[in-house]
Amino acid sequence: MVSVELITVGDELLIGQVVDTNSAWLGRELGHVGAQVDRIVSVHDAASDIREAVETALSRADAVIMTGGLGPTQDDITKKTLADLFSGGVMRRDQSVFEHVRRMTAERGLAFNDLNQAQALVPDGATVLPNRVGTAPGMMFVRPGSAPGREKLLFSLPGVPFEMKQLVTEQVIPLVKSHFALRSVVHRTMITFGLAESALALAIAPWEEALPEWLHLAYLPNARGIRLRLSAYDVEADSAAKEIESRFAGLREYIAPYMLGFEPASVEAAVASILLERGQTLAVAESCTGGSISARITAMAGASQYYLGGVTSYSNEAKAQVLGVSMPDIEQFGAVSEPVARQMAAGALTRFGADYAVSTTGVAGPGGGTPEKPVGTVWMAIAWRTSDNGTETFARQMRFSELREQNIERAATHALNMLRLHLLGLSDAFQQTGML
Amino acid sequence: MVSVELITVGDELLIGQVVDTNSAWLGRELGHVGAQVDRIVSVHDAASDIREAVETALSRADAVIMTGGLGPTQDDITKKTLADLFSGGVMRRDQSVFEHVRRMTAERGLAFNDLNQAQALVPDGATVLPNRVGTAPGMMFVRPGSAPGREKLLFSLPGVPFEMKQLVTEQVIPLVKSHFALRSVVHRTMITFGLAESALALAIAPWEEALPEWLHLAYLPNARGIRLRLSAYDVEADSAAKEIESRFAGLREYIAPYMLGFEPASVEAAVASILLERGQTLAVAESCTGGSISARITAMAGASQYYLGGVTSYSNEAKAQVLGVSMPDIEQFGAVSEPVARQMAAGALTRFGADYAVSTTGVAGPGGGTPEKPVGTVWMAIAWRTSDNGTETFARQMRFSELREQNIERAATHALNMLRLHLLGLSDAFQQTGML
Repeated sequence: MVSVELITVGDELLIGQVVDTNSAWLGRELGHVGAQVDRIVSVHDAASDIREAVETALSRADAVIMTGGLGPTQDDITKKTLADLFSGGVMRRDQSVFEHVRRMTAERGLAFNDLNQAQALVPDGATVLPNRVGTAPGMMFVRPGSAPGREKLLFSLPGVPFEMKQLVTEQVIPLVKSHFALRSVVHRTMITFGLAESALALAIAPWEEALPEWLHLAYLPNARGIRLRLSAYDVEADSAAKEIESRFAGLREYIAPYMLGFEPASVEAAVASILLERGQTLAVAESCTGGSISARITAMAGASQYYLGGVTSYSNEAKAQVLGVSMPDIEQFGAVSEPVARQMAAGALTRFGADYAVSTTGVAGPGGGTPEKPVGTVWMAIAWRTSDNGTETFARQMRFSELREQNIERAATHALNMLRLHLLGLSDAFQQTGML
Repeated sequence: MVSVELITVGDELLIGQVVDTNSAWLGRELGHVGAQVDRIVSVHDAASDIREAVETALSRADAVIMTGGLGPTQDDITKKTLADLFSGGVMRRDQSVFEHVRRMTAERGLAFNDLNQAQALVPDGATVLPNRVGTAPGMMFVRPGSAPGREKLLFSLPGVPFEMKQLVTEQVIPLVKSHFALRSVVHRTMITFGLAESALALAIAPWEEALPEWLHLAYLPNARGIRLRLSAYDVEADSAAKEIESRFAGLREYIAPYMLGFEPASVEAAVASILLERGQTLAVAESCTGGSISARITAMAGASQYYLGGVTSYSNEAKAQVLGVSMPDIEQFGAVSEPVARQMAAGALTRFGADYAVSTTGVAGPGGGTPEKPVGTVWMAIAWRTSDNGTETFARQMRFSELREQNIERAATHALNMLRLHLLGLSDAFQQTGML
């Protein structure tokens, strides 16, 4: 197995201002192509620390990936330190980076200043990995090996996650794959939603027990579902992939209504694909979720093909005026109530002329709770058109936690899942749905 | 300054299944008491890797804190490895741990099995740090030093975050403080938004150059701003804090319109505090940002005091029917255009009866771009009431990148910042505003 070490550079990591999420992402991505991360080291923006970490990592690993310390400002010294290590301190101006940075600054209406120009300087002998989405280029260095074909690779990448990810996906992984002979690791992950971890484990126990030795199952829970990952190491890729596929197909026997699909499946993507296939449209009406259902739908490319829009009716007046909810009902039952949830969904259906609408109204917290409606209480509804062009609605109440952020995320996910189950004709599954 | 190194143990960290949040927390907590984390190393659950990491760390640092690998199952080998290193492999049964684990398993209705009993075994000579909230005890090892009072400390703690935190707060920090003579570390971070990193660096160059030697400046960029952190090590805390405060006050001379406040400031929080103070209200009209402006506002507790709601008008019909945008204008100028942005903001202002409204309409990508309006083109507008109860609007166009997620986040942040600058009477700053 090809051994990779990661070096993350930045005082912000050591003083705890920033959590190092890059390393976990790199560990996953490299693992998917059969390279193994064997060590992660975080060091200060200090030349001696960087130098020592690079030399130690290169002495052990086949490849080293560094992130951070490539910005244009004085505190960033990774590039200079690598020039000292690999090219006797000699830097050259890379014309393509120069033009790219000039173009980016021009497009943004900025002066092309000395600091930007310095971003085009790279250590002599380094291979430039163009950064399409930022100004600091990635770089690759080759350390001669004990024998031909045993060269070691060192990559230096910006620490900004989206720039780093783009460079890794488009350039680093292909380079690593072509340089090393990678053996296979097969991972496949099924996303489930609607069953709590322990209930899920009980439901699929017979399936889990029948798995062959060489298939490893992991449960990975978060607020948007529980992921079930099957992994096979050092195997013949095609047949392992087929076996995993067939095992997951067999899982339908146990938990079909809760299976959203393979990663990166999500409730919103499942809803989207059903609507797209049927040529139907969606609108939303949000109170406690505050726009986050809409934001999750529109985060997906192509949302305009089925998503017409939404209303965040945060005030009572907005519920009445923009969505047509009855003000007397709000006064009688409260904004967090079944009739308000139903009328919000119906209002969005009509206002946007959609085929389906989903709504939420709840107490996200930390304030606003009462003994009857404590923080975490959420009413959610869906509305749809009947064959005679009337409107029908379905509503349910759920109770989440005391944490605002969690409540918003869970309410949004459950509301979308309610619609998904309705679209699939599985509304009965509401009854068995456990809480995450 | 007391130098600390962290070693986090666990395959799950290296394959990227778990993000190491323990280290950032430890960095902050140790920094607060004047100990500095100088390196973080993550290694596999493998005896040789753990041994090598421990010896290397002890050769450099004054103290080492390890987390992870103390569970009862066979994959956890940290305790055994430390016994080999520090006590020739000899373990003893600690009676207080034995009683504690027996009590905890009984309370949970579990059998007190062999694996639990093994948790009471500790390396001979280790000091037990009782774990009130879990079954695996923390441990402290002392490595003799070059001179009396120069002993080095090694702590081994469970990796479960809440158990680790409890042990650090109640036991590790007091032990470190009493063993070493700690001096103070002071960090303070100012959030800026609206100037690109290089432009910011140029704008504040005179201020940066005038900083005293003992104050360290770091630039920390992300899509929601650039953070400027000033750090002082080994100082008298009160006077250092005062000096940092006054330096940041002096920064106003250079970049006042771009300063959002001290961490955890954000553009949305800055807008919120101005509106709250003035008793004014806000509505939004989103197209390309798809609800994310609304979601960011409502993620903050208490948003209902100034936020009335918003419309995500994703389709042209929704723009016309729900917000009152002129359909002939949409047809003539396109949905991504100045008149549509202005009418969306004005429509939201009227529909929700708000004092201010902000709107976005753009090409988030990856599809939908044209030569005149490529992916990343966004029009944004703000609307407000004039003294004679009319409506006035201001609009501007920006160009972002090819990445949908980034385009949404940047458009939302810039739109909110446009409103912030208007509220502060600083609209001129638009002219100089660079992109992030």
